[in-house]
Order: sequence, then C-alpha cells, then structure tokens
Amino acid sequence: MTPTHPNPLYKTHPWISPTNPPVSNAPMLNIATAPLATSVSAAGGIGFIAAGYDTTGLETQLREATTLLKNLDPSNPARRFHTETGILPLGVGFLNWGADLENAMQILSEHRPAAVWLFAPRDMPADLKPWVDAIRGLDDDASAAAGVRAEFHTPPTQIWVQIGTVHEATAALSTLFPDVLVAQGHDAGGHGLARSASIVTLVPEIHDTLLQRDPSAQHIPIVAAGGIATGRGLLAALALGASGAVMGTRFLAATEAQVAAGYRREILRASDGGASTVRSTVYDRVRGIHGWPARYDGRGMINRSYVDAVHHGMDDEQNRSLYRAEASKGDEGWGPSGRMTTYAGTGVGLITQVLSAKEILAEVWAETKAVAGRLGSL
Amino acid sequence: MTPTHPNPLYKTHPWISPTNPPVSNAPMLNIATAPLATSVSAAGGIGFIAAGYDTTGLETQLREATTLLKNLDPSNPARRFHTETGILPLGVGFLNWGADLENAMQILSEHRPAAVWLFAPRDMPADLKPWVDAIRGLDDDASAAAGVRAEFHTPPTQIWVQIGTVHEATAALSTLFPDVLVAQGHDAGGHGLARSASIVTLVPEIHDTLLQRDPSAQHIPIVAAGGIATGRGLLAALALGASGAVMGTRFLAATEAQVAAGYRREILRASDGGASTVRSTVYDRVRGIHGWPARYDGRGMINRSYVDAVHHGMDDEQNRSLYRAEASKGDEGWGPSGRMTTYAGTGVGLITQVLSAKEILAEVWAETKAVAGRLGSL
Repeated sequence: MTPTHPNPLYKTHPWISPTNPPVSNAPMLNIATAPLATSVSAAGGIGFIAAGYDTTGLETQLREATTLLKNLDPSNPARRFHTETGILPLGVGFLNWGADLENAMQILSEHRPAAVWLFAPRDMPADLKPWVDAIRGLDDDASAAAGVRAEFHTPPTQIWVQIGTVHEATAALSTLFPDVLVAQGHDAGGHGLARSASIVTLVPEIHDTLLQRDPSAQHIPIVAAGGIATGRGLLAALALGASGAVMGTRFLAATEAQVAAGYRREILRASDGGASTVRSTVYDRVRGIHGWPARYDGRGMINRSYVDAVHHGMDDEQNRSLYRAEASKGDEGWGPSGRMTTYAGTGVGLITQVLSAKEILAEVWAETKAVAGRLGSL
Repeated sequence: MTPTHPNPLYKTHPWISPTNPPVSNAPMLNIATAPLATSVSAAGGIGFIAAGYDTTGLETQLREATTLLKNLDPSNPARRFHTETGILPLGVGFLNWGADLENAMQILSEHRPAAVWLFAPRDMPADLKPWVDAIRGLDDDASAAAGVRAEFHTPPTQIWVQIGTVHEATAALSTLFPDVLVAQGHDAGGHGLARSASIVTLVPEIHDTLLQRDPSAQHIPIVAAGGIATGRGLLAALALGASGAVMGTRFLAATEAQVAAGYRREILRASDGGASTVRSTVYDRVRGIHGWPARYDGRGMINRSYVDAVHHGMDDEQNRSLYRAEASKGDEGWGPSGRMTTYAGTGVGLITQVLSAKEILAEVWAETKAVAGRLGSL
C-alpha cells in the first residue's frame, strides 16, 4: 500500500509548492544548467544542475544560479529560502563513475546546494560511501556555525541516490542511508540500467520490500523517474507509491533547457516513443565516451548511428568518424537519418510544445489534480 | 487528459462488477483454461480462455466453462448473463499467426463467448481483417434469430485487439474497428513486442493520438496490460487513461490457474522483477516453437536456457536437448538453475501468495479504492 504518513519532501525541500506533488528535473548532462534548475525551483519544483562526470563547469553554474535566484521576486519561496538559509534551493547531480570527490566537495562547501543526487558509481553502493560521508561532513561544519533560521527549517543536505532495481535500492539503503531514493524505470531517456522494469512494478516492489525489512523505512521517499511527462504519469507515479517524480524528456522542451535547436525539433516531432527510441551503448561509443560501467546503456531516438551499428554491423571507428562529420552539419545532424545523439525517453511522443519550466509544472499539476479528482470517486 | 465519458466496458460486458474498475486475466496459453476464466468472470472480472495458436482444445474448454457457469449461484451475474443471453460471460484469446480461422469460427458459432481477443497476426492488422469480419458475421446470424432479452442488454461479440505501439493502435483502429484496444507494455510476461514502452507512456500516447485523429475515438476503451499486479498498478493504469486492466503474472498465482507446482513456486519466490526476468526468444527456441513473427519475444525468469544461450553461446540444438532432459525432472526443472520456461512479467516480485481469482480481485480492488481515496484529496 502507499504510505499514509506525510510526504517528507515538503519538509526537506522547504521552498517547493506545498499544494502540488513534488517534481524535479533530471540532472541531464549539458542540458540541466543553472537557468533550468533555478526556473524549476522558482516554480515550486526541485531543480537540479547536472555536474556529470566532470566537475569543471560546476562552480560557474552555481554562481549563475545564485545570480538568477537573487533576481527572483523577493516573495518567491525559492529566493526566500536562499536569502534566509544561504543554501541554494536546488540540487546538483553527479555521475559518480567519473566525478572527482575532492573537487566536488571544494565547490559544494562554498556553494551549498540543498540536495546532491548520486548516480552510477563503478561499484554500487560502496563507491558512494565516501561521497555520502563527505556531504554529511559539510553539514556538520555548517551547523557548528549556523544559528536557528527565522522562517525556514534548515534541513541537512538531502542525499538523493538513484537506483534501478530492488537490489540496488536495498543495498543503497543499508549502506548509505540516503534521504531520497530515485527509482528509475526502463522508459527513461539517457543513461540507466540496461535491464530493468518500468516504474509500474519497480516503485511498488521497492516500497513493499523496504516496508518488509523495516517498517520505519516507509519514511524514505521514493521519487519515480522514467516515462513521466504529463500529469497522468505523475499521478500514476503517486498511485504506485512514489512521493514525487522526476521528468527528464519533458524538460528537454523547456525554454530554459540548454538544448540544440535540432535536438529540440526531434523531441517535438517524435512519436510512438516505445518504437522510435531504443536502449543502446552506441550513442556513447560514437562520441568516444567510454567511462560508463557496463551495466548501463542509454535510451535515445533511433538514428543512423544505431542502424549502422546494429543492422549493418558497422564498426565503432567508422561510425565514430561519421558522427564527427555529422556534427559539423549543425541542426541538420539530428533526426532519424542523422547521427547526432538524441537521448529521449519513451514519453517523447507526449511532448508537443516548448514551454517555460513554470508553464510545464503548471500544466502537469493541473492535469494531475483533474485526473485525481475523477479517480477519487472510485 | 483521461476520458470523462462513462466507461463502455460496463455496458459491453454486462456481468462485470459495476462498482469496480474492469479487470481481465490475460489469455495465457495452457494456463488460462476454463476454471480460471469462469472464476474471474464469476467474481466480476472479464475471464479469458486461451485458445492460442491451435484451436484443438478450445471446444472442450468452452464446454467445461459452460458446466462451471451452470454450477454458479443462480444470483451470480455471470450465470444470469449466460442463462438469459445464451452467451458465455467470458472471452477467448487467439494467437493469430497460428490459429485456424475456419475451425475457430465453427467452435465460436456453437459456443458463443462474449469477447474474442486477437493478438500477433503475421501481418498486423491485415491478417486480422477476415477474423473480424467472421466474428461480426456470427453476430448477424445470431441477431436474426434472437429476440430482445429480459434483463441484459446483449452486446455484439466484443473484439479485443492487442497492440504494443501507437502505430499498431492507429492501424488496428482504422482497419478493424475493434471494440477494445489492449495496450501491452514492456513489463508484461510472456510474448509481446521485443521493443516497446511500458504502459506509463504507451497508454497516454495512444489516448492522445486517437483523440487527435478523431474526437469520437475516445469511446474506444484502452485496457492496459504489462506490470499490473496490485491495486496500485490498476490505479496507475486508470490514471494513465485506461478503462481497465489485464493481469497475467498475478493470475499465475491463482488457485484456478493451470500451472505446474514448480512454475508457481518460482512465481512466489522471485523478486526484483526487472532484474530477474528478461525478454528473449530463447524460451521458444528451446521448446521448438518457431511460429512467432520476428517482432515478438517473450519475458521470462532468467534460467539456464537463457544463460547458456546468451552468456555461453550455446547453440539451439544443444540447448533444446538439455531442455528436453530437464522436462523429465518434474517440478525440480524450474528455477534459476533449471531450464523449464517460466514466463513472468516484471511484477513477479509483487506476488507473494496463492489466492483464488475471487480473492485476488477483491484484494486488488480494495487496494485500488484505498489509494484512490488518498490521491483524491490532491
């Protein structure tokens, strides 16, 4: 059964809309930068900046986010949270197989985000332990200096850990004691476990398993990711036992996302997401990205790179050189007969227009409530 | 948005529970026989008998169903529907790449089921056209003879067509004019499209696409299949825009299902459905089943057949002979180190006990309502 206790995300991310289900943007590498993350948080969601596997650009991003927050209306809860606590009302997402812990902590100790999202260590969960300890250490240092805040309860830095199976969830929980479990299903765009269920079974099975192991585990919120693009998907996630949801593909069509015009055009054009996307490692290989642990691949729009590799047996070297040539074509390089990597989830067919992050959240929340109202009469 | 019009399934399958969301059992070959189908219908669901790709056993099944229905309490709506209309309050599922149309129609004209479920023709949807025409023809013959029934409105034979992509849905709709679309997602156990989305995106995208093409298309109910094993899954399906749901794996643990003890033991034991099951064609190959069109594979528990084929490169001949030897071991042949095919969906980890079909439906419906009540306050 779904939890009856109050949703802890409202307390631990105090700037979010208190009257809507929590929604965050996925920390999509090179796409979820300061403008998207701050807009999501300013609209009452939980914005995430992608640091990825390389922390080089992170400090610049956090500085930009600070500026953007200071330009918000003084009454905006995200700005007020920032002003009163000194903590950025957003999170930072790392790809832990590549990210450097020391660099990351140096940046995070100066620019404190409210949340850190850990994903894809080489060894799961062991390699995340030093990260969790270091992040908890930041809080200890800070709480020694801080007094009691006027209006906002200041929660410790929220540690989000992304998992894709029940086994990963229980292992993460008993080793890391995260604050939030992000349960990513098979529909998700971009990287994830090559083999997994969708959130339809992943979320309730995690929920039941945690409850069985430890009745107090019900307090750990599960945030569902993978295929959620509309209010119907968000409501489904809540029905399955999630306390909130992540949207990735949907935010590719946010005005604030840093997405090439050709990429965005494909997101709007594509339909039949289960047929037009595929999980593969080819999109990393053609771009010369080799760091992902073997259990991961990525879901993207089927294009020439994939067809050549899988149907025509083209070797990686030739495919990669064709990719490089394609990259010079600009926006024409995207599409089914192009070669530019177009990561997208199976929800891509549900996305029909570019809207601001605020408009996206308003639309999703309105639909969620409308459908919930109808189902409530069951 | 989800439909606001009344759910047509209540009118077209008049014996079903009027106060619960419609649920049917999947027509699982050799498993969904007369006892399961009649129990599901007697409990207020929509029972299906699997005819599969070979109609040999169908007549016996339908005779048995008739007997079972006559033994129900006279006040049972399924029995009353049968008594008053002469139509069996259940459906028959065909695998159309193999089933013989003429044989099938001969049987169906004598033992009229309320619904026929068509799936997996070689050419989709063209090969289903003669089936649809023949089924509609049965109704014309019958209605010439029939008068107006006392209590039950007698709907025409309901044609359910199973699809796995938006493209298949629109093609089926414009060629076949089915009464029900079964939208099968990637989590489903047994056969389905090798590449597809889960119901999280498949159901809403079909819904939106049909509405866009033809606003009157909203009257065609979508029944979701794949991963639904609990009330939370059923509620999620409704939230996504489905008018009802199919459960397959869950009914493997129904007392009335015709399942070997070793198979059922695995269903109860298995956990982490996204990790412990896999989509593959190996389970057909080791059993010498070669008729499935190439676009299909089947999801089953990972076992030695799979590991040997995929990780150890074992050829089909050897794998098949090992399978045959395993079959002589009886119930010991099932399990991760066994070889007996154990089709199951990713929801397998949610199934913890054997219950009657009636108890399963009662539990699922109670959970659906409890969760809907909580979400209704959104």
